This record gives sequence, structure tokens and C-alpha cells, in this order.
Amino acid sequence: MTPLPPDPTLLERFAAIVGDAHALRAEADMAPFLREPRGLFPGRTPLVLRPGSVEEVSRILKLASETRTPIVPQGGNTGLVGGQMPGREGNEIVVSLSRLNRVREIDTLSNTVTAEAGVVLEALHRAVDAADRMFPLSLASQGSCEIGGNLSSNAGGTAVLAYGNARELCLGVEVVLPTGEVLDDLRKLKKDNTGYDLKNLFVGAEGTLGIITAAVLKIFPKPKGREVGWAGVASPEAALGLFGLAGERAGGSLTAFELIGGTPLDFSLRFTPNAVRPLAGDWPWHVLLEVSSGRSQEDARALIETILAEGMERGFAGDATLADSIAHGDALWALRENISEAQKPEGASIKHDISVPIASIPEFIGRAAAAVEGVCPGARVVCFGHMGDGNLHYNVSQPAGADPEVFLDLYRSMNKAVHDIVRALGGSISAEHGIGRLKRDELLATAPPVGIDLMRRVKAAFDPAGIMNPGKVI
Amino acid sequence: MTPLPPDPTLLERFAAIVGDAHALRAEADMAPFLREPRGLFPGRTPLVLRPGSVEEVSRILKLASETRTPIVPQGGNTGLVGGQMPGREGNEIVVSLSRLNRVREIDTLSNTVTAEAGVVLEALHRAVDAADRMFPLSLASQGSCEIGGNLSSNAGGTAVLAYGNARELCLGVEVVLPTGEVLDDLRKLKKDNTGYDLKNLFVGAEGTLGIITAAVLKIFPKPKGREVGWAGVASPEAALGLFGLAGERAGGSLTAFELIGGTPLDFSLRFTPNAVRPLAGDWPWHVLLEVSSGRSQEDARALIETILAEGMERGFAGDATLADSIAHGDALWALRENISEAQKPEGASIKHDISVPIASIPEFIGRAAAAVEGVCPGARVVCFGHMGDGNLHYNVSQPAGADPEVFLDLYRSMNKAVHDIVRALGGSISAEHGIGRLKRDELLATAPPVGIDLMRRVKAAFDPAGIMNPGKVI
Repeated sequence: MTPLPPDPTLLERFAAIVGDAHALRAEADMAPFLREPRGLFPGRTPLVLRPGSVEEVSRILKLASETRTPIVPQGGNTGLVGGQMPGREGNEIVVSLSRLNRVREIDTLSNTVTAEAGVVLEALHRAVDAADRMFPLSLASQGSCEIGGNLSSNAGGTAVLAYGNARELCLGVEVVLPTGEVLDDLRKLKKDNTGYDLKNLFVGAEGTLGIITAAVLKIFPKPKGREVGWAGVASPEAALGLFGLAGERAGGSLTAFELIGGTPLDFSLRFTPNAVRPLAGDWPWHVLLEVSSGRSQEDARALIETILAEGMERGFAGDATLADSIAHGDALWALRENISEAQKPEGASIKHDISVPIASIPEFIGRAAAAVEGVCPGARVVCFGHMGDGNLHYNVSQPAGADPEVFLDLYRSMNKAVHDIVRALGGSISAEHGIGRLKRDELLATAPPVGIDLMRRVKAAFDPAGIMNPGKVI
Repeated sequence: MTPLPPDPTLLERFAAIVGDAHALRAEADMAPFLREPRGLFPGRTPLVLRPGSVEEVSRILKLASETRTPIVPQGGNTGLVGGQMPGREGNEIVVSLSRLNRVREIDTLSNTVTAEAGVVLEALHRAVDAADRMFPLSLASQGSCEIGGNLSSNAGGTAVLAYGNARELCLGVEVVLPTGEVLDDLRKLKKDNTGYDLKNLFVGAEGTLGIITAAVLKIFPKPKGREVGWAGVASPEAALGLFGLAGERAGGSLTAFELIGGTPLDFSLRFTPNAVRPLAGDWPWHVLLEVSSGRSQEDARALIETILAEGMERGFAGDATLADSIAHGDALWALRENISEAQKPEGASIKHDISVPIASIPEFIGRAAAAVEGVCPGARVVCFGHMGDGNLHYNVSQPAGADPEVFLDLYRSMNKAVHDIVRALGGSISAEHGIGRLKRDELLATAPPVGIDLMRRVKAAFDPAGIMNPGKVI
């Protein structure tokens, strides 16, 4: 692979595939494709291509293979680990899938939707809603993230508990391989045991094995009732007890179980206009839970009331409240969803996206708090997340009033302190955000070499020329 | 790879790894490992090894790699496609995992069980039951099939509708690679986005990429109520209407939805001692459905009554009944489960294990019936299966009184006629039984070459010496 930018003639050949209007070369035109949410991954490119068909994607990759030109696929550009960003060298061509934005088919008998990679998640929600169905994947960035990126990063979000992550929602994929060949595996099948599971290799591969251009996704009947509740709990152990109870009572009707520490709630209350503290008392931990019913609103109400009443009786919840209107439920959700933004006014932060076995959550929280204090006395732990999935966003905000730069100098030691505990507990250092550029070195340095070696063999087998999203994942 | 049996000195070296008591060489000792359910896949072997630890499995594969000795992993030996059988040449060593039969841990907080490959499915059910949890995978062969085989074949069964197949129930695996290296990915995590999904490559690979020695599996709270119902329906379209309704009303509480044709019901009634026709009328199609509730028996009852009453009102079901006791429910299930055995007294049969998009089931059934009649006038279609998963066991029994041998001569043309329709509808020619030896040639001849090529690259990357279960899958 050449470290030099592709020569102008070659760029012309790429541009000709999509047409000049869709081959961006001016700095201002390319800028939106080179700015990402965290501002952590500066990159340069000589060309952003916006193909309008699978055939154009195929021709781009064929030419890239022939000329060994590195390609960076990009969806809605909302990824948090830099997987969608070209490197600094300026020799990688960005291929945006945003123009492949057709919902090809909604099948309400098979309960599937076939959507192209560039369909924005929220647009897919609307299309499916209009067919009286529901697509459950739900993320903070759903107004701009796209299905191809959701699949390539195996996105998680708040609905994983009941419906699974992007991988589990995907039945089939259409993928353009590095050679330009198209793998058409757009099947609507729940059961298909005809050989190796290729689909799940492409899902979560962050564009390093090929480009997902379309997918068949599961859709569901809309719930007839939905109730949101909030509980104050004394400890992570108590929250775990409440989770076990909620799972037993509600099963698949338990559609969210979010743990929120006292500090992130305080941050969110300060940040959110007109926010009201959900409970009178001052609890060290909180649980936001949601129950959905396929039967009725009354049924959802009865179910969540049972869980909270029994949770208080058994001493898991100290206090609890139910949303008494849709607006009230949305306000409770906003307190959860605003946490990340609410960290900004509090100064610098160091973030972790981890998972551990659910049973180990209390131990993790206890050990990590001590480790954080050891690295930076006075740092404020902003611990919240999808407890029901074992997934916590274990963020750390700087001590109040401290120097942000001094705090950020602790980035690597803080990461190491937290991730060492995650590893000791058999957890994951990237539960839902992926590896991208951000965590690649750490993955390679700390993951079992046997697994890394197998991943390298997969990469070499699928992309022998190494043109697909180099420097990411592996 | 040598076509000659391994030389005696080499066999001694393999035997020494497990000890003489567990290295079977006498014909009578080896016989149970060489007889499989369908009697279709004769094979020979010089040696059956029964390792007692992961370390022994590792040493076996290391020696096999070094000496290029082909290895056939075997679980409970219940597979229907010959995946667990050595070839006829007699140069492949069978490695039985049955002695790795420890349930390593049950974690009722994380809701996981960690079990070794040789744990019999029914034994796992009992162990999990004793911990007040439920492991949902349920197969006709559960008294002898083993977890390693269930995962390697991505087993399906009757609980897939609500809980998913073996793949979806598996969170992590421990795998011995062809080199003897051990991949320890026994994680209890629902969310882990750290690189390529290796787990799902091994699941469903039928032992061609390595040997699964243990797995972390999901377990669930036990349902508090379970109800079984039976409906007579006029057509597959009506059954599809009933399925849609049941899914809307019950969601994840709909734990089975089985379609049964009139002919298989008649067969099963003739075959099953003291069997009673579930409904008075003579319906061309039948649905066996089951609802489970996490709340109570009364709740399950109310739910299934709603579905059946509304199903009759809306004209989907012509008649319906509810099991009025556990014994009655079991008797209804027995009519479904006995179908396969009930085909034997009816003469020769040609079987298919297919899936199509759920919406296409009526079209498939219509077209396939005509195709069968075209291949063999008078042949009796025995169509039944997991309609809720799009998976039908589309079996064909010989015309009453015809010559079985003449009928079996139609095997390939019947397969082709049925599978061509499956392919035209975007379906799968092996929904749950796998490829093994039985369907390998057909897969290679009919699957899209792009996918086959990728599978070959995976195989070559993981097993470059080609020692793992040669001649299977790919």
C-alpha cells in the first residue's frame, strides 16, 4: 500500500464511477465527512465518494483492489471510536453510503424490513411505524446514524435487553467484498444451517472485511402499552435484586433496565432545563425501568406496579415512582439520555464502555471506584448504563475545579485501571462502541493472542490486499 | 492427507494421550460410534478416542496437525446429516467428547450456565431446573444429544420461536483449534464488540474448524404457567393469519406454533397407541400452539383463550381446543412429535428440512404439492414443522402400497423439485439439521459461488492442513 496519496488520474477514475456531483474534492464539501463526534480522530482524504447504487460500490472496490487503494466506508459518521475516519496520511478514500437510502421492502407477514445501508435509523423507525410495526434499535444518535454503520458496529442502545443488539436484529446482509464481488445473503430466514455464519462476520467488522450495502432486519408488532418507572436503590446489589425480580415477573416485557449513579443524576438535573428530581429522597443509585405489553396499557401498568411494589417489599427498592403521563415518562428518560451531554459543563471526562457478567456488576463498581480514586483523588465517577445487559458507561469526570489538561493526562492510566478490573472479571472493554482506531492498540496488547491470531487470519482471508478500512479493529 | 489408515505406531501415540481404557479399537467397542440414526452414512475408523479433559483434546489435535491425521469430532451421535461420521476410507480418527460432561457453573444472577461439550441436553435441563431456571433448547433427541453437537450443528427444535436456536442461546465458547491451541472465549457477556465474531463461526461449523469443548449458555426464569392449544384450520393462509394474531397478542409468550398437515396427523393417530383425534371435524391443516407466562397459570390460560377465540371470530381457526390437563397437553405434543416415527410403517420416505420466509409458506406448500405429484403421482405429503420459524419438515411418503425401492429411486429428483422451489423463494435447504455429508454436494452445486468461496477461505484460514472433519459442509 502506498503511503502517498493516489495520483490524480486514479482519483479521476474513482470519481468517474459515481459522477462528478458525487465525488467531493473541495475541502468545504469534504469537511462534514472528516469531523466526528468526539473530535479525537483527525483524518485527511483526497476524495469522498458518494455512490448511488450497489453496482457503483462494487466498481469502486474493484478498482480499489486493482490499484491497492485503501477505502474507508462511512455511514452517518456518528461512531465514537474513529472507525469511520481516514488516517492522517491522506491516502485513503472515504466511501459514504448515505445515498443508498432506500427501504426496499417491508414484509408484515414475515415481520422483516429490507433496508439499504444509508437509511437513517430514525427514518427506518418512521417507515416501519407506518406499516404498523416497530424496529426496536434505539440510540442517542438515531437522527443521523445509518443502518450500515449500526450493523458494522453491532450497535447496542437501550432496547437490547428485550430485542438484542444490531446483530440479533439482522437476518441477512448484502455485502460488497473488497474484490467488488457482491455477496447476496439478503435472506428473511430465522433458521438457515447451510454452512458458516458469514453474516455475523460482517456485522461488527467495522467495514474492515467489506461494505454492507443492505440488510434484512427483524421488525415487531407494536406494544399496546408502555410504562416507565423510577426507583431509588441503596446499592448496586439492591439494583441487581430488583433486576432479577423484574426479569422473573416481566420476562421479555421488561424493555429497559438502566442503572444511574447519584452523580450522573445530579449532573443531568443541573444540565436539563426544568428538570425535576424523580424521587424526594437522595438515593446513591437509581433505576429507570420500562415495561411494554403486547396486550394493553393497563396490563403494562399492572406489571410495573407489581415489580415496584414487590421490589419495595423485598427491600430492593427504597422508593419508587411511576410516570403518570407520556410526558413524564419522556422526562424520566431525558434524565438518563442527557447524562453524556451533562458531563461537558462539568469539565474534562475520561469514558469507558464496558460490560461484565451481570452478577459481577456490584463487584466491578466497588473495585473501579477505588481504582479511580487511586488514579485521581476527587475525580467524580459517572456510572450509568444498560445494567440488564451488563453494560455500563463508566465515565469519570475531573475533580470539580481541577485543571482539565492535568486530568486528561491521566487518560491512559485511568483506562488501564478500569479495564484491568474489567478483564479480571471476564468482561469486555468495548461493550457496544466497537474498537475502531481508539481501542485497537489496547485490544492487540491485551486480548488473548489465540483470538487475535484468528481475527488476523479472517482479515487476511477476506481482504488479502488490506484495502478495507486499514488501521481499524485489527 | 494420506488415504491409508494411520500406522500402528501413530495410533499408539494417539491412544497414549487418553489412556488405553479410553482408546477404543475393538469393533464391538467402536460400533456405537459408527451407527447413526438414519443408517445412511457408513463409515470406518481405526480408533475412537474418548478424551477426559480439554488438555487431552488439545494434545490430540496437536498430534493430528503434526501428522496430518484427519479427525472426526462426535457428540451424542444423533445428527441426521452424517456430520459426526467418519468416511469409508478408514483413515479418520473419531474423537468423542462424551466424557467432557461437567456442568462447570450455573450463575443465577447472570442467568448463564457453563457446560462442557459432552453434557447430554436432558442432563443440562435437569441441572438447570434444580437451580430454578430453564434451558429452553428442546429436541426430539434430547435424551442423548450433547451440547457440543447442539452448538456445532446450531440445533433448532421446538423452542426457537421464543428463545432462538442454539446460536442465539450461546454467549461464549471454549474451542480447541486444529493446532491444539485453546481459544478461551467463555464469556458471560450479552454485549462485547471487541473484534470479529469468532464464536458464531464455530457454532454451526459442524466440527470443521475446531472442537468446541465448553460453552456459556443463556438460562431463563421458569415460566409460571404453560398452556397448550390445538386449532383446525382450512389452509396454510389461515394458519398464517392465526400466527400473526398470536404473535401480536402473546409476543414472547408464544412459545410454540407448529403446523401439521392432515396426512401427518392421520399417520400419527394410526401410530400412537390410544391416540385421540384432537378435534371432531376433519381439518386439512392443524396448528399446535403453546403459550407460556412468567406470571401465572391463569395468565397463560387467559392469553391462549384470547388467541383462539379471536382466531375463530376472525375466521383463521375453524375449530379449537385447549388441553385441560398436563397429560392432555402432552398427548397433543405427542401427536406432533411422533410424526417422524409414524412415517416408518407407511413405507419409504424422502425428507426435507427447509425454511422459507414466513410470508411465503402458503406459496411454498402449494407449489411443492404440485411438484411432488409431478415427480411421483400418489405420493403422500407429510408437511409439518415450526411454522413460526418458517421451518417445515417437508417429508414425502411413498404412495400407499407402492414399491419402496422404486419410490426411493426418485430421491434426487424429489429433492431437486422441492429444493428448487425453496431456492426460488429465498429459502434454505437445511433449516436446522446442517449440511454434513448429506447435503454437501448440493450446497456446493447450488449456493452462490461468492458465499462458497468465502466459506472455503474461512476453512483454509482456520484449518490449513484440512484435518478437521474432512468432507463435511464445505
